[in-house]
Amino acid sequence: MLTFNIEHKDVGSKARAGTITTAHGTIQTPIFMPVGTLGTVKGVQQRDLEEVIKAQIILGNTYHLYLRPGTEILEKAGGLHRFNGWDKPILTDSGGYQVYSLSHRRKITEEGVTFQSHIDGSKHFFTPEKAIDIQRSIGGDIIMAFDECTPYPCEYNYAKKSMGLTHRWLKRCCEHFDKEPSLYGYYQTLFPIVQGSTYKDLRIASAETIASFEREANAIGGLSVGEPAEEMYEMTDIVCNVLPKDKPRYLMGVGTPANILECIALGIDMFDCVLPTRNARHGLLYTQEGIINIKNAKWKEDFSPIDPNGPCETSRFYSKAYLRHLMHCKELLGAQIASLHNLSFYLWLVGEARKHIAAGDFASWKDAMVKKVQTRL
Amino acid sequence: MLTFNIEHKDVGSKARAGTITTAHGTIQTPIFMPVGTLGTVKGVQQRDLEEVIKAQIILGNTYHLYLRPGTEILEKAGGLHRFNGWDKPILTDSGGYQVYSLSHRRKITEEGVTFQSHIDGSKHFFTPEKAIDIQRSIGGDIIMAFDECTPYPCEYNYAKKSMGLTHRWLKRCCEHFDKEPSLYGYYQTLFPIVQGSTYKDLRIASAETIASFEREANAIGGLSVGEPAEEMYEMTDIVCNVLPKDKPRYLMGVGTPANILECIALGIDMFDCVLPTRNARHGLLYTQEGIINIKNAKWKEDFSPIDPNGPCETSRFYSKAYLRHLMHCKELLGAQIASLHNLSFYLWLVGEARKHIAAGDFASWKDAMVKKVQTRL
Repeated sequence: MLTFNIEHKDVGSKARAGTITTAHGTIQTPIFMPVGTLGTVKGVQQRDLEEVIKAQIILGNTYHLYLRPGTEILEKAGGLHRFNGWDKPILTDSGGYQVYSLSHRRKITEEGVTFQSHIDGSKHFFTPEKAIDIQRSIGGDIIMAFDECTPYPCEYNYAKKSMGLTHRWLKRCCEHFDKEPSLYGYYQTLFPIVQGSTYKDLRIASAETIASFEREANAIGGLSVGEPAEEMYEMTDIVCNVLPKDKPRYLMGVGTPANILECIALGIDMFDCVLPTRNARHGLLYTQEGIINIKNAKWKEDFSPIDPNGPCETSRFYSKAYLRHLMHCKELLGAQIASLHNLSFYLWLVGEARKHIAAGDFASWKDAMVKKVQTRL
Repeated sequence: MLTFNIEHKDVGSKARAGTITTAHGTIQTPIFMPVGTLGTVKGVQQRDLEEVIKAQIILGNTYHLYLRPGTEILEKAGGLHRFNGWDKPILTDSGGYQVYSLSHRRKITEEGVTFQSHIDGSKHFFTPEKAIDIQRSIGGDIIMAFDECTPYPCEYNYAKKSMGLTHRWLKRCCEHFDKEPSLYGYYQTLFPIVQGSTYKDLRIASAETIASFEREANAIGGLSVGEPAEEMYEMTDIVCNVLPKDKPRYLMGVGTPANILECIALGIDMFDCVLPTRNARHGLLYTQEGIINIKNAKWKEDFSPIDPNGPCETSRFYSKAYLRHLMHCKELLGAQIASLHNLSFYLWLVGEARKHIAAGDFASWKDAMVKKVQTRL
């Protein structure tokens, strides 16, 4: 069983701090989950995920892991935890998002999605049932329903039709999930996903339908796909008002530090995003004083630590000038240091949010922090 | 002052175990020095260099560091130790080797070498004096004389002429080095380099000339450039017989685990080579049982640790199948794990050699180990 215990509720916002319990340990919310696409958080050793970044749960991507190494190897390994040596909680997405964003020549029918691999062009067919089977093979503690993630902008009629399909697919996911047990003897849980694009009535209808499935937690998809931040917040707020208060809420693929803080205030408990690692590889660093483009000439002779008062031991150790040099020379170590830095910052940020929710001053702290984290240094 | 204290001499070979003392600490010989081309051992955090690999000294490359980040930044940082956070000994090469192997349109005269940068084609002029100045700016504990490294094969007359130039350049290096003090207040020392290609008489003449400069240690260059291993060993043996026994001997750019063991037996104390890191990035792993090409299909479902009984905690943690998956997906973490593994193995190998020299059974251990490390697994 997945449990969720809410320990604190903020007084000035809808933020809450809680603890989720899974078969591989507990997660203190609100939480950010580093993305481990192919079974590895890019450039980060598992030991550093635990000791430097202090990650509590990581993601695996079903689409990527299905293509490489494939479910046969994952099953023989005894699941992803055994394969990559990460023995804390893992969440897997359903592959739906990547099927739409990465693969070629996809074709959606009521039955499922036919797509071509972005690697070798080979043809594959995902159904809700197959997405569940693959996730059972990967062995994540939390697995996601197979949905259609609509693009932005999306016409109302398409969004409505797609939402209906997502709901019917959810029913198939649940039925299949509930009759097929875990392969590895530990408990897995299935999160359903609210869709509905940026239309209030669709979002409300979808949230009501998703809630009616009465799963152990609920997720919100189809945001952070190009819409203005204000629309993302509005939709998140509307959906959070419908989804049950006593279950974890996961906002998929969000976002910047400011996005995360604003959505914690709306009642979101879980986040994931590739931004901290992808931007790290391009030299964009998040700090509590603002955003640093470490490639800029202004850091060339700045021998002070990357983030002197920050939470990351790695960025207290190395200087800005050294990291800039590594980035300019495209040295592997540059991406490694920057990834450790950004992920440490994200985990620190949600940890601070949790502390301020407990202290009862989250809303005012959040407003001040949102301004700071958006500053360009 | 650089000191060298020989603590053990092997009975069955010319191997010796000693301790070199530098301004940044001691080095237990025989030693392998990981190559940190641009001020970073590719893909390895400084913390892991110390804690996982147990490196005692690393290299910096003058040619690369002169081009990026340049001596101005290195001087403002207070030298390479301060710049990259490695506070143990550093050795810098003179740039001569890279000028010949990497740069375009080089032209050698008595005065020095004109070359074009491999990065942007910009023109540069290195003289023996300039090579010393740059190395003073980098601030390595050990700096190398500017020499001409001849290719293999090399005609006798060219090798002889080139050797003469290397000797005249050495005189200029020493004169310049001895009158220009360290920029950072700590002691640096200059190693001269024996050349002479694969010609016995030239090698003997060069070793005698180099020894006559009476520097604190001596290096052997121009080997491991394509000649058969037997020729490398023959030349190393001849030169070691001439160079003073009480000073450290450094064989530059060597080599495979077998090369290193054979040359320790001939009286070499210090080694460096890009093989362990370069091969790591291509999936070739050195172990005490032999060489593994981790990309091979045979490791696809091998979930045992990369090197279950090896010295590297990282390769006891991750499985062969996982590393193979990372390598196939070209994930950053693959190169990181493999680099930690190979460098840990090299450091372990020279550490074991040291133990067996002390125990007096080096020669027999070496013969058995040479066979093992050359096996293809």
